[in-house]
Amino acid sequence: MLDFTFHNQTDIRFGRGHIDNELYDVLHQYGTNVLLVYGGHSLKQTGLYDRVLGLLKDLNVTELPGIEPNPKISSIREGQKLAKDHQIDVILAVGGGSVIDAAKVIASAAYYKGDPWDLVISPAKRQDLAQLPVVDILTLAATGSEMNFGSVISDPTIPQKKGTQGPNSPAVSFLDPTLTYTVPTRQTAAGASDIFSHLCEQYFDTAENNDVSKSMIEGLMRTVIKWAPIAVKEPENYDARANLMWAATMALNGIVGLGTVNHWTVHPLEHELSAQYDITHGIGLAILTPRWMKFALNEESKPLFARFARAVWDQYGYDDMELAENSIRRTHDWLKSLNSEMTLPDVGITDDSKFADMAKAAVAGGSLDTNAYVPVTEQDAIQIYRDSMHDFAE
Amino acid sequence: MLDFTFHNQTDIRFGRGHIDNELYDVLHQYGTNVLLVYGGHSLKQTGLYDRVLGLLKDLNVTELPGIEPNPKISSIREGQKLAKDHQIDVILAVGGGSVIDAAKVIASAAYYKGDPWDLVISPAKRQDLAQLPVVDILTLAATGSEMNFGSVISDPTIPQKKGTQGPNSPAVSFLDPTLTYTVPTRQTAAGASDIFSHLCEQYFDTAENNDVSKSMIEGLMRTVIKWAPIAVKEPENYDARANLMWAATMALNGIVGLGTVNHWTVHPLEHELSAQYDITHGIGLAILTPRWMKFALNEESKPLFARFARAVWDQYGYDDMELAENSIRRTHDWLKSLNSEMTLPDVGITDDSKFADMAKAAVAGGSLDTNAYVPVTEQDAIQIYRDSMHDFAE
Repeated sequence: MLDFTFHNQTDIRFGRGHIDNELYDVLHQYGTNVLLVYGGHSLKQTGLYDRVLGLLKDLNVTELPGIEPNPKISSIREGQKLAKDHQIDVILAVGGGSVIDAAKVIASAAYYKGDPWDLVISPAKRQDLAQLPVVDILTLAATGSEMNFGSVISDPTIPQKKGTQGPNSPAVSFLDPTLTYTVPTRQTAAGASDIFSHLCEQYFDTAENNDVSKSMIEGLMRTVIKWAPIAVKEPENYDARANLMWAATMALNGIVGLGTVNHWTVHPLEHELSAQYDITHGIGLAILTPRWMKFALNEESKPLFARFARAVWDQYGYDDMELAENSIRRTHDWLKSLNSEMTLPDVGITDDSKFADMAKAAVAGGSLDTNAYVPVTEQDAIQIYRDSMHDFAE
Repeated sequence: MLDFTFHNQTDIRFGRGHIDNELYDVLHQYGTNVLLVYGGHSLKQTGLYDRVLGLLKDLNVTELPGIEPNPKISSIREGQKLAKDHQIDVILAVGGGSVIDAAKVIASAAYYKGDPWDLVISPAKRQDLAQLPVVDILTLAATGSEMNFGSVISDPTIPQKKGTQGPNSPAVSFLDPTLTYTVPTRQTAAGASDIFSHLCEQYFDTAENNDVSKSMIEGLMRTVIKWAPIAVKEPENYDARANLMWAATMALNGIVGLGTVNHWTVHPLEHELSAQYDITHGIGLAILTPRWMKFALNEESKPLFARFARAVWDQYGYDDMELAENSIRRTHDWLKSLNSEMTLPDVGITDDSKFADMAKAAVAGGSLDTNAYVPVTEQDAIQIYRDSMHDFAE
């Protein structure tokens, strides 16, 4: 187990009974000027927008709507200006990971004189800046942004999609599973795929003998595998929504990655896909994950894939390679049972003309050729993209 | 899954590389007057006492040595006086759970005018008090006190042993597994038994459909089952010590108990044993746990014991009662492989004259007859104590 530090101050309020009773007091402790950050009209359709505004009473609310999936630097610039112009005391983010990601970077940009893209490409600059407190109401179980320090911001004009870490995780996160009852099937599945990918990225790691992290990850994987199909079939099943929501947070609040090397592979490969084609992140991950697993399985990685088969997929037997291959097939089949789009053409990517550039950017950005669990060269990355053009072949 | 809140601000510094570089700065941020709380001479024998004092340099150090296992209210009173007399800014606790438990209550008592036993029997009084920051250097993997709000304090004159919760968990905890290399076999085993018991208490719970917590607990149980025997046989195996140490923290920092009812049974039963006979807490738990399991297995609890058998003990089969019984036998045999004392006479308790009083206090103190996973009457508790007088019978 490697040395680590852990310090996470996010105050979690989980369940049905918190928002109405606690939101006002939570915000008011920071001041009276609130920047309300949210996405599109779904918030108004579900009634959550009116409910939240009703709870804010006498607080001065400035609105920043229109945060899109794969949040754009233009939204951050707009938020920076609003935060300064209105002397914002606290940001209230209502939405999924994109909205919370944006809120966290705006919280830093409020104290920054220059263009906020600097803070995305040079996260070190954020560490010395103050950061506005972010309070969030989560509406999608997926990214874990509600209890971590990270954000992923895109500039579609370049196009680039980059991760950045701030000094603080959200101050207070309200996690009410009933708010995800209205999440459409496709987004529920994409969210579950995202959670599962976060767990895979941390599980397939070169650090040895870290059973605390590995065994908790196995437990979270089993939880997502069990409850995601139920949430897809029964959108208002509270326990399914609750297990997915809390698993999403636990999958990426930092805890299950402690003491590991924690270099990721599939996310850098996917970020190029959604930077170039603006596809849904979780669906990109669902497409790439089984192809990456097939690439990554070799004599050296076989024991860990076999452990994955036994502990997560209930596979029994003595032939580790057979178990490992079974685990990949089971992973693919589970992802396919959730997601109807499981190839790149399914999401509208029908030619391979950009694969070389994407592979180059992914390998460089993620140091995949040197640091990944199984090193990925540009040629390997191109092959993983190409394998994703057609149905999964075992 | 039940509603919950979670907020834990402890800053964890895990591994070999932190204490020498960071201890001084961590303490100095709070001020210059340090109360150094520790136990007995083992700290001086191992050289840790000199090492720590050397790191404190120009800080003003007041010492409170002699914190015993099952820490006594007399130590808290002494610490309260020292903290006031020396205008202490921060408490540095160096030791195991007992030392950290004592430090946390002294941290509250420093702001209390009355006798600190009030704070033990009425923890609500601590919530309105300030609390000195506690920094600790952990030397035993067991109680989880390094990342939680609880303390257990005894008054041997009554005799009583009571749990109390403060408003804050430790500010900073240094967890260096190499500091546990010198822990004797008996204490290593007792610590592992304590960790396992914490996990059992949270696992055997009436809250349903909380797979995030249950599956992480299963993973932590597997980790402890794997690494405790290695730590016992190879005291300087870093990975064994590291997995045990971090599992101990994760087992009782609150996370794996979220969303559950979280009423405990074996700890209240054991607290009466160590209150009356001052035995080692972890050994008392090792003795009681299999007897409690045998008591708790019935038609209603059978499915959870069977799940425990499959997920934790790798038992396969279709007969849930057989699986459940196997899991209890496996639990007993594993505890016995670690602990040489597995009956009450082994720890010097040879007559049953106090059992009725202990059972009465345990049932009342833990609300065992109404709130436990399987309700325990006074008669049941007496029977569990009696079953602990002789070798475990399946």
